[in-house]
Amino acid sequence: MAYIDLKNDQPGIRGLMAYCHETSKPLNELAQYLLADDNNTLTRGERELIGTYVSYLNNCFFCQSVHGAMAGYYMECDIKQIENIKKDFNSADLSPKMKSLLNVAGSVQKGGKHVTPEQIQAAKNNAATDKEIHDTVLIAAAFCMFNRYVDGLGTWAPEDTAFYVNRAPGRAKEGYINAVKAG
Amino acid sequence: MAYIDLKNDQPGIRGLMAYCHETSKPLNELAQYLLADDNNTLTRGERELIGTYVSYLNNCFFCQSVHGAMAGYYMECDIKQIENIKKDFNSADLSPKMKSLLNVAGSVQKGGKHVTPEQIQAAKNNAATDKEIHDTVLIAAAFCMFNRYVDGLGTWAPEDTAFYVNRAPGRAKEGYINAVKAG
Repeated sequence: MAYIDLKNDQPGIRGLMAYCHETSKPLNELAQYLLADDNNTLTRGERELIGTYVSYLNNCFFCQSVHGAMAGYYMECDIKQIENIKKDFNSADLSPKMKSLLNVAGSVQKGGKHVTPEQIQAAKNNAATDKEIHDTVLIAAAFCMFNRYVDGLGTWAPEDTAFYVNRAPGRAKEGYINAVKAG
Repeated sequence: MAYIDLKNDQPGIRGLMAYCHETSKPLNELAQYLLADDNNTLTRGERELIGTYVSYLNNCFFCQSVHGAMAGYYMECDIKQIENIKKDFNSADLSPKMKSLLNVAGSVQKGGKHVTPEQIQAAKNNAATDKEIHDTVLIAAAFCMFNRYVDGLGTWAPEDTAFYVNRAPGRAKEGYINAVKAG
């Protein structure tokens, strides 16, 4: 039960988006560009993983479940592997570039000023482009918003991880623009 | 100097928005609705104050200067008074409703799960509507994104507070949709 009467029983951010259409439009457009637009040198899986990692650090169950399932779908790995990456990405089978970007994202989660020039330089040394660094910071910052929106209004979330895994292929096909309409 | 080459010399989020038009559109639309739309029972000044307070807690100089000047403009008070509100809103000349909403916003800044049912109930007891609570949480969450975007990419900000105060009346007239174009 959310802290306010959402006039619908959808979980997580979906209930909030159905409640307030005026803000759902720009929020979905932002998610669509950052996570699902194909004109990006970071894969969809890599971008979903950044969102998943930040949602994990923010302890947001709904967001880390939704986007962890999406990352797993794109990266063709199971939820257990995604769990391991969240807990210790440095030991995971990820590129040096991706590890340095997740390092930046982890600092963004703490606060913008936690990002250091050395972290940015490490990402550049691992061949991250300016645009990839930009997108990493904005994805991490955006999830700091989404996570707070979802938990700050006390929304509910299905407990069964299968719910999220089963929904991932459909969401991958549909994208985020019509996330509310598609349910 | 920002951490990446923005191909422009605009300060704060304006430099980032000029760099990436695809994300500037939804970000400006979100700011426009949350802060400047007149179909809202919270005044523009109250909504700018929520954003200012969260930016202050996140120690984001650019955002707290821009939005502090906007709040001062709408509330017809000077920057010194806004400074005092940021440091101790409970002692300020604000309505009990506004104080309880700033209390919620302060918890959102720490993380979504820091908001308590008691804080929400206190806001309701002070006649805050569900929509006002929704908007307070989303404004606070959105500024946790904006602040991280601005500082996480190391953007620069004019040091002189007069820059922000002088710009406020124009921004109030123009709104946020064309924030980049208007410069």
